[in-house]
Amino acid sequence: MDDDVAVDFGEDGLVPAVAQDAETGEVLMLAYVSPDALAKTRETGFAHYYSRSRDELWQKGKTSGHVQRVEEVRVDCDADTLLYLVDQEAGACHTGHRSCFYRTIEGEHVGEEVFDPDAVYDD
Amino acid sequence: MDDDVAVDFGEDGLVPAVAQDAETGEVLMLAYVSPDALAKTRETGFAHYYSRSRDELWQKGKTSGHVQRVEEVRVDCDADTLLYLVDQEAGACHTGHRSCFYRTIEGEHVGEEVFDPDAVYDD
Repeated sequence: MDDDVAVDFGEDGLVPAVAQDAETGEVLMLAYVSPDALAKTRETGFAHYYSRSRDELWQKGKTSGHVQRVEEVRVDCDADTLLYLVDQEAGACHTGHRSCFYRTIEGEHVGEEVFDPDAVYDD
Repeated sequence: MDDDVAVDFGEDGLVPAVAQDAETGEVLMLAYVSPDALAKTRETGFAHYYSRSRDELWQKGKTSGHVQRVEEVRVDCDADTLLYLVDQEAGACHTGHRSCFYRTIEGEHVGEEVFDPDAVYDD
């Protein structure tokens, strides 16, 4: 049996995690993960992250229903970045897009809109 | 004409950038980008990053030849993460793998080895 990779959470106790659509390969979002968020993700099978602005653990989609079922967690060579391979409900982005990366740096809109954010979020 | 998206480089002046194979969708690596690294990337068409450990701008593959030709740069909704869509020469990872995400968190080896690191790197 393989041993778990020891993740290097660094000074601030967080690592970036890239969420990728397990089926299409689309990169959906990047957020940060604490040891607790990683443990919850592995325990429940749903993606959890740590919000730096709200200073709390959160489950993606808990409010909106746009959860991420995690099929696999990968670790990079330095063990300081994670890759979540997920089955994304509706869209990952609070703007209504499937992916948070819906713009080029030139400002061109290239992403798919999959839901109406006004119908999903209260604020 | 669209206007460039103003990237939020935050307190430390860096944003994470995910490099993704533009053709296959494979997530190859994550590294950090400074304003200068982003400018160089856009100017030259080759991926540049900022090394936090060496405290310097670097061009991916400058030594190894495993450069990344950047087809598109995307920005996420908060404008604090970049996505480089790249044409990766050989492999992105110094370990000889195509992708730095060659292991699951359980330690299972899932990535493809594409070159011999001993033949490419001196140290």
